[in-house]
Amino acid sequence: MLDVIRAAGTISRVGLIQATGFTGATISTVVRRLIDDGLVMEIGRAESTGGKPRVLLRLNHTSRYAVGVQLDHAGITYVLTDLAGSVVSRIARAGAGTAEPPAVVARMAREVRSLIDGAGVDPDRVLGIGLVSPGPLTPASGMGLTPPVMRHWEDFPLDQALSEAARLPVVLDNDATAAALGEHWSGVVGTSRTFAAVYMGGTGIGTGLMIDGVVYRGASGNAGEIGHICLDVAGPVCWCGARGCTEALAGPAAVVAEARADGRLARAAGLAKADDQQRIAADFAALTRAARRGDSTARGLLERSARYLAVASRTLANIMDLELLVLTGPSLASAGSIYLPVVRDELDRSFFARATHPIDVQLSTSAAAAPAIGAATLVLQTELVPLREGLRLPGRLGSREPASAN
Amino acid sequence: MLDVIRAAGTISRVGLIQATGFTGATISTVVRRLIDDGLVMEIGRAESTGGKPRVLLRLNHTSRYAVGVQLDHAGITYVLTDLAGSVVSRIARAGAGTAEPPAVVARMAREVRSLIDGAGVDPDRVLGIGLVSPGPLTPASGMGLTPPVMRHWEDFPLDQALSEAARLPVVLDNDATAAALGEHWSGVVGTSRTFAAVYMGGTGIGTGLMIDGVVYRGASGNAGEIGHICLDVAGPVCWCGARGCTEALAGPAAVVAEARADGRLARAAGLAKADDQQRIAADFAALTRAARRGDSTARGLLERSARYLAVASRTLANIMDLELLVLTGPSLASAGSIYLPVVRDELDRSFFARATHPIDVQLSTSAAAAPAIGAATLVLQTELVPLREGLRLPGRLGSREPASAN
Repeated sequence: MLDVIRAAGTISRVGLIQATGFTGATISTVVRRLIDDGLVMEIGRAESTGGKPRVLLRLNHTSRYAVGVQLDHAGITYVLTDLAGSVVSRIARAGAGTAEPPAVVARMAREVRSLIDGAGVDPDRVLGIGLVSPGPLTPASGMGLTPPVMRHWEDFPLDQALSEAARLPVVLDNDATAAALGEHWSGVVGTSRTFAAVYMGGTGIGTGLMIDGVVYRGASGNAGEIGHICLDVAGPVCWCGARGCTEALAGPAAVVAEARADGRLARAAGLAKADDQQRIAADFAALTRAARRGDSTARGLLERSARYLAVASRTLANIMDLELLVLTGPSLASAGSIYLPVVRDELDRSFFARATHPIDVQLSTSAAAAPAIGAATLVLQTELVPLREGLRLPGRLGSREPASAN
Repeated sequence: MLDVIRAAGTISRVGLIQATGFTGATISTVVRRLIDDGLVMEIGRAESTGGKPRVLLRLNHTSRYAVGVQLDHAGITYVLTDLAGSVVSRIARAGAGTAEPPAVVARMAREVRSLIDGAGVDPDRVLGIGLVSPGPLTPASGMGLTPPVMRHWEDFPLDQALSEAARLPVVLDNDATAAALGEHWSGVVGTSRTFAAVYMGGTGIGTGLMIDGVVYRGASGNAGEIGHICLDVAGPVCWCGARGCTEALAGPAAVVAEARADGRLARAAGLAKADDQQRIAADFAALTRAARRGDSTARGLLERSARYLAVASRTLANIMDLELLVLTGPSLASAGSIYLPVVRDELDRSFFARATHPIDVQLSTSAAAAPAIGAATLVLQTELVPLREGLRLPGRLGSREPASAN
């Protein structure tokens, strides 16, 4: 229900009946509860179309807030969103780096508090924290198989630790899934309800999938791993153990490794030494700037990566029969304009169902912040979707507020 | 509702309330209608557990039937199933070959009639025909992009033509999707509700996907095209226009082409000439027999194909985060025992979320008939699923029977 109101902007009770198929009595009861709870407000009457003017409803945007945190080795992004998923405040801080997880978590709790205080928001109105990091994730126990730069986080109970330190409920998910949600709530998705967010993070590649407006997670929350599909059976061995993975051929870490090995390019772009894993994201951005300045070697490396990503995107599109791909994530925030035409061209030429329908490819308008925004919307969805089903009122995640009746 | 009754075997009204969450009043009304319509019958009372003994319900299996037809160039398989999806009768006839579509359709109509008559079933009890063929499909206009052996079927209005010729409603779908449904209704799937049927047909490769017990079709009904994902960016060009597709590297047509090019093997296995596209399925079966007899070249070719299929299966599993893969389809009916260990081994070693959960790989117990069974269940689902939602009674598809009230 709240999602319908949010999507509509303003809507009458009659409009809600038409949009949801619920009876008038159900709509009345639920709207009454939403108003009592301060989540929805009446904002006057629509112009009469003959009958009795209808009272318009809209979300009370500032009634609740959510924090979204994207944790990566190269940077931590924090956003505070209102109930509608609009970003109220955003800060970027140093990444996890090589520090021990408990120290990083303690710092994150302080940074979350400073985000909320800095925005002048009452902490009691914050529903919780959505925390996203590179997958795969095991629910309630943090990261299982971890990428090399975050290996020391393996099996660390991330959500529990942050929840205790920040004294807020924490929902954990992977960054690519959150990016899809972020695009759905605030991005270029428009009316497409079945799409993938192709996500290039600080070092890796993944996708978040939405089917008919709902996140598709798979059996264990690890769907969409296009970073670990095989594009070349004779390709290099990936950290995951398989051969010829997209990430090993085309991920930021692979591109940067090749660039660093080219002495001329490494000097021209100011890249770090070969084994500096902490500087991968920074060097990928530096490489992108070099390509934009006209360095043909840099451009060649990025275009080669783009061709692999394009083939992986086609695989994804052929398996899922998608309407839309959104290119997003920190690395595509900088290099998106190089990748977009290559991916578009590949799908125009080779998408299997192209005779039936085209597939649209768009560059995110919020590629750097999409995962953190999505993380915050995870909290909103966790809290608000049950309401839509009439099951319960907010307070479930919150340990400070008693759950409302029902 | 019918699906719940079917899955349960026998169930009481109270059991239905517990299983569906509907109110007692709704259950009473719907069950009354199902009984009036002859679809469900009361079969006595359960043993008392203290209270009033409960009346048990079960499907009236013989109240309705459905025809499933799998059309391929190499063979046409027909099944007649009862309301529970159990096969009552099954016949196999010559494939579409090079004959013109209208002639094939006329023959199919005769063969459908002889299937029904041969089983002694009242034609008025047949709900319709589910027709499946290699994809991709454009709804209501037959096959769009067609595999080489069926190119002359492109844009032929298959469903409409067969419906007119057989005077029965026709539901069209692709063979791999139908195979997944067939496995779900009658196969090795068990309690797994999110799985893929990896389908190797007469010449091609595809998959049917089920998510949480429902077929996943994608934006245009063409999801699951693992035959046309890239396993080798420098691989051979496929008929679909892309390079290094699974089908071009590992499909029956590719395996048979390699085998025919080996003079010694071609003679030993009795294979047709290089350009005989109509004998591909037969030659693939001959090659399988040669491998079983100990011909190491034949076995080597099949195992190489199995390794490619295994990598494609891993891609599918990593994107969808599946619980189960079922190997099925005519070619795997003969060669499944060679493919199964290779696919299993690949997923045991390299499935990305293996730290979180294992992925099961099973060989279908009805690999040859699964698509035709699935085709028949398409009819049952089209007719019966709306009933479960209380929307309408059977008769919608039937042009001969007036639709029941409501």
